[in-house]
Amino acid sequence: MAKDNQFVSQIADIENDFPQWYSDVVLKTKLVDYGPVKGTMVIRPYGYAIWENIQKELDARFKETGHENAYFPLLIPMSFMTKEAEHVEGFAPEVAVVTHAGGEKLAEPLCIRPTSETIIGTMYGKWIQSYRDLPVLMNQWANVMRWEKTTRPFLRTSEFLWQEGHTVHASEEEAMEETLKMLSVYEEFAKTCLAMPVLTGRKTEKEKFAGAVATFGMEAMMHDGKSLQAGTTHYLGQNFSKAFDIQFSDKDGALKYAYTTSWGVSTRLIGAIIMTHGDQRGLVLPPVVAPVQVVIVPIASKKPGVLEACAALKDRLKRAGIRVTLDDSDNSPGWKFNEWEMKGVPVRIELGPRDLEAGKMLCARRDNFEKTEVSLENAEEEVKALLSNVQTGMYEKAKERMESRIVKADSLQELLSGVNGGNFVRAGWCGCRACEDKVKEFAQATSRVFAKEDTQETCVACGKKSAHTVIFARAY
Amino acid sequence: MAKDNQFVSQIADIENDFPQWYSDVVLKTKLVDYGPVKGTMVIRPYGYAIWENIQKELDARFKETGHENAYFPLLIPMSFMTKEAEHVEGFAPEVAVVTHAGGEKLAEPLCIRPTSETIIGTMYGKWIQSYRDLPVLMNQWANVMRWEKTTRPFLRTSEFLWQEGHTVHASEEEAMEETLKMLSVYEEFAKTCLAMPVLTGRKTEKEKFAGAVATFGMEAMMHDGKSLQAGTTHYLGQNFSKAFDIQFSDKDGALKYAYTTSWGVSTRLIGAIIMTHGDQRGLVLPPVVAPVQVVIVPIASKKPGVLEACAALKDRLKRAGIRVTLDDSDNSPGWKFNEWEMKGVPVRIELGPRDLEAGKMLCARRDNFEKTEVSLENAEEEVKALLSNVQTGMYEKAKERMESRIVKADSLQELLSGVNGGNFVRAGWCGCRACEDKVKEFAQATSRVFAKEDTQETCVACGKKSAHTVIFARAY
Repeated sequence: MAKDNQFVSQIADIENDFPQWYSDVVLKTKLVDYGPVKGTMVIRPYGYAIWENIQKELDARFKETGHENAYFPLLIPMSFMTKEAEHVEGFAPEVAVVTHAGGEKLAEPLCIRPTSETIIGTMYGKWIQSYRDLPVLMNQWANVMRWEKTTRPFLRTSEFLWQEGHTVHASEEEAMEETLKMLSVYEEFAKTCLAMPVLTGRKTEKEKFAGAVATFGMEAMMHDGKSLQAGTTHYLGQNFSKAFDIQFSDKDGALKYAYTTSWGVSTRLIGAIIMTHGDQRGLVLPPVVAPVQVVIVPIASKKPGVLEACAALKDRLKRAGIRVTLDDSDNSPGWKFNEWEMKGVPVRIELGPRDLEAGKMLCARRDNFEKTEVSLENAEEEVKALLSNVQTGMYEKAKERMESRIVKADSLQELLSGVNGGNFVRAGWCGCRACEDKVKEFAQATSRVFAKEDTQETCVACGKKSAHTVIFARAY
Repeated sequence: MAKDNQFVSQIADIENDFPQWYSDVVLKTKLVDYGPVKGTMVIRPYGYAIWENIQKELDARFKETGHENAYFPLLIPMSFMTKEAEHVEGFAPEVAVVTHAGGEKLAEPLCIRPTSETIIGTMYGKWIQSYRDLPVLMNQWANVMRWEKTTRPFLRTSEFLWQEGHTVHASEEEAMEETLKMLSVYEEFAKTCLAMPVLTGRKTEKEKFAGAVATFGMEAMMHDGKSLQAGTTHYLGQNFSKAFDIQFSDKDGALKYAYTTSWGVSTRLIGAIIMTHGDQRGLVLPPVVAPVQVVIVPIASKKPGVLEACAALKDRLKRAGIRVTLDDSDNSPGWKFNEWEMKGVPVRIELGPRDLEAGKMLCARRDNFEKTEVSLENAEEEVKALLSNVQTGMYEKAKERMESRIVKADSLQELLSGVNGGNFVRAGWCGCRACEDKVKEFAQATSRVFAKEDTQETCVACGKKSAHTVIFARAY
């Protein structure tokens, strides 16, 4: 189809120029636009609807695991940031600073939160007195700001939306349990809702959060084989409780510093969805978070009864809880197919006079282009089953792909070949920073997560006996 | 009960010191705390849960009326603010300014949005080309910042949370229709969800939004008879479309400036709820937005079977969709009654051995302290009906109160007496700014909304024949 090609050609080739493909797709599908200030993005309704679905799913999981939402101020006194030494070192270079307000110069400059450990820690220090006050399990949905040199919509922007959980516990064990529990909540969410397989594990010292004792991450494989850090959870030990005086009198009467955690995912997840599932035609959205799950395209829509039947079907599906739209615009069916394929709508229904006569409709899956004829009578159940199959199918496909692209390397040269070929690379690592830096220099790859921390390996960089297996990859 | 009095005495007298009563209640019920930066607030989980319920209800109404959510950047170049002359005059004195970011001085200072007309207008100017692109109906849930000298939690804080709708239309009529439609959405929401009666109407030139052609507001009467502006909608005419070049080619081929609107409500609504319904014992929360709708207090909880029966009842109510909590703490029932009354939980259920024997439970309403014995068998239906009655009862009570406190004044002296007595005052007004200022000076009251714009009156300030009836009041 000439029309088809013409349309698709508006998007750069996904294999030859993935970065351009990404820009084309996010802009043309109206997920996002560039904001007027460098590095900022405007999340347009089609993109924001994905975020709303992400929020809904995650928020339910947070509440099920006992967390409550709260809201802490955007502006943090600079002096708070400096109370935790590693933290300020990591974040100070990236902060945006308010120096004037209400027509006057401020006595102390305020920074726009890059993350909220310091201000939330200050409040926790005030609120928590006794072991009876623990655990504190809070989450915040908010905007944060990190002034980045190189930006890309959703992936790295100076302002982004996220959630940040901040919890306080009486013991190390409980705090570590929370850290790992939220990592598994993220992993299950990524799998179930985003159809996105991830590797989870601890991060190296070099890659951990500024101020954490240990950071755990989930890493997902993008279309080009690069890794995207899709979420992190941090065990903060007593670092922040000591900096912000979060003490409690324990059952034994002694005053003790509490143990804290924090964890977050952001609008970056939208980028992860795009780059995990997208294809040459554009977006491929997982049904659970797709703003539109089903589009109905009338065939020969001028023929009597067609539009009415489409509208009736739409109402039925809507009542069944399906996010459905009817494209009754003047455009041709072929144009509509392309448009909605580019927008990644999981299921397209074609309904024309012949279908109506036969009491059927044609369902086309976005993920694998399979078409099936389905009885109109059972439309609700059939479409629900189809959406569920799309969701599972997308996950399985992405999982197989990721698993087939994890290779083993015994040398830096093998590691380089591995990442050049668009793979994640498993390799031994002795644990020293110099070797991690060497890998970075030689292969432009970084350690993503520990695959094993207590094993017998040989370091890919120095050849020494090593206890760790690490996943290396190029990363967003 | 001595214990009772002791407890209640922690809150200042609502009649003698309403401002202190307000501070006591918001802090002691843990709705909010003061943030470290002057004028900021921390919205604690109990307060934030009210906001979540408000969001859920409003968001559904916005979507039903065809609006989509989006997200625009926090930071606005100062040069944008100055494009609409009245707008910058109104907001410039209140903005917080970012001058440094990423370790460098910025070429142009950026302000933290006090409202987003300018940045959204800029994007609309880019996106809108044709009449086919109209109307644009968007809403944003966001934080905004206005640097205020005098602040009070929820009522006036330097940062607050809100929603701001921004729409674009091809004609004046359509834009005005939208402006009035959203005012009525707010009014219905206030009535149905917050049990809060409001007066709605146009605002005077003096009180309108900076840059609007016309502002409409809803005003609610607080416990002390003062008015609180609880929401506003603005008809912006072509002011912003001209400043931000929002033009479209119309059906006739001509290039035209569009007509825009904006409208918003904020976390201020939480303050409105508190000050509309609260009493000497603390909060009285409307069931629709109460974080906890029902609290179960076990009586003689050590007796066999009591706690189990309470837990089973809790599960039943929860499954029925009721937000219910069981207070199985070690505190005495009396202590619990006070605590949950202060927290404004609409219905308290008491369940003890004698109730269980009789197959009954005791339900106590927070709003009027009525107690009724109810069969345990029909607990779900009974409690739902009770919550519905509380909601309606609270609205009726507030409505009667407000209506009985709207008085007529024919002179400045009467107007002064009226507002001194905690009333809203209806009075004639000639329409000139000098008379409005005179009322302000004489009675410390401002015009809240027009009651009638086309009538025969005498101006309360100058005695001239006047076309307008205005509601004057002292205001938050």
